[in-house]
Amino acid sequence: MDLKKLIRDIPDFPEDGILFRDITTLLKNPEGLTHSVDLLCDKVKDLDFDLVLGPESRGFIFGVPVAYKLKKGFIPIRKPGKLPYKTHKQSYELEYGKNTLEIHSDAIEVGQKVIIIDDLLATGGTLKAMVDLIAKLGGEVVMIACLIELIDLKGRELLKDINVETLLKY
Amino acid sequence: MDLKKLIRDIPDFPEDGILFRDITTLLKNPEGLTHSVDLLCDKVKDLDFDLVLGPESRGFIFGVPVAYKLKKGFIPIRKPGKLPYKTHKQSYELEYGKNTLEIHSDAIEVGQKVIIIDDLLATGGTLKAMVDLIAKLGGEVVMIACLIELIDLKGRELLKDINVETLLKY
Repeated sequence: MDLKKLIRDIPDFPEDGILFRDITTLLKNPEGLTHSVDLLCDKVKDLDFDLVLGPESRGFIFGVPVAYKLKKGFIPIRKPGKLPYKTHKQSYELEYGKNTLEIHSDAIEVGQKVIIIDDLLATGGTLKAMVDLIAKLGGEVVMIACLIELIDLKGRELLKDINVETLLKY
Repeated sequence: MDLKKLIRDIPDFPEDGILFRDITTLLKNPEGLTHSVDLLCDKVKDLDFDLVLGPESRGFIFGVPVAYKLKKGFIPIRKPGKLPYKTHKQSYELEYGKNTLEIHSDAIEVGQKVIIIDDLLATGGTLKAMVDLIAKLGGEVVMIACLIELIDLKGRELLKDINVETLLKY
């Protein structure tokens, strides 16, 4: 099954000159959704890990079914102010301005092994911030697995010590 | 399995006087996640429907694994400006101010039957806005299934023509 055929290209979104890879057409297709989740599971299923982490909100879309299928727990990484308990925060630079991510301070125990699932590896900024958050809590990232990778943005360079797998390269 | 034991009560979040039901402790527990998704699937699996819809972002957490397990497509309902293609919008009143939801205009075909999955039935405002959006596109909601229902907020009254099922009542 060619998953790329299920992804819709949207020119000039979210701004002029950006070609956006729209995954909603893939999600709507039952075989596309099943196959994407199963392929992500194949990347991680032989690894030794305790938890699946995914960033709000598209990381939830693939992270939760991977956790469900592999019978692991899921930890949401959220935008500021959404998590109700004590949190650790990590800010990171964007092209214009800053973003911040939060994780519950008791989400990961020291020494626990985790995988990160997201839809997209672009510049790697969000994923690097997640890796830093996990390190603050004493966890270890054994793999990052994403549906899509935008090769030209060189996100892997920011994540150079981490095992990164992606399904669809553009 | 008593899923309520896996939900953490957080007093005074997001504001004073609110007792927040924190599902992150349930999601972190592999059996809790598996059992929640399986029970939601049990509510809908014998219905005739085409698609699963879930609202950003906690609706993604349960909606996608339900779609995955039942081999249906998933349609994300998002906050304004996130969906890249043509959209339909629906605004609704909050206690203070307004919220708006968006759906891709081609997400549902006329006559398609859908279910809505979310984590929480509170006042029902978000779910009612989703029902209205689906009606605009010519779709039919055959069930809304949520993990948690806050009985005192009487969300069912706003959704009185819809089949609503919830797993955990508070």
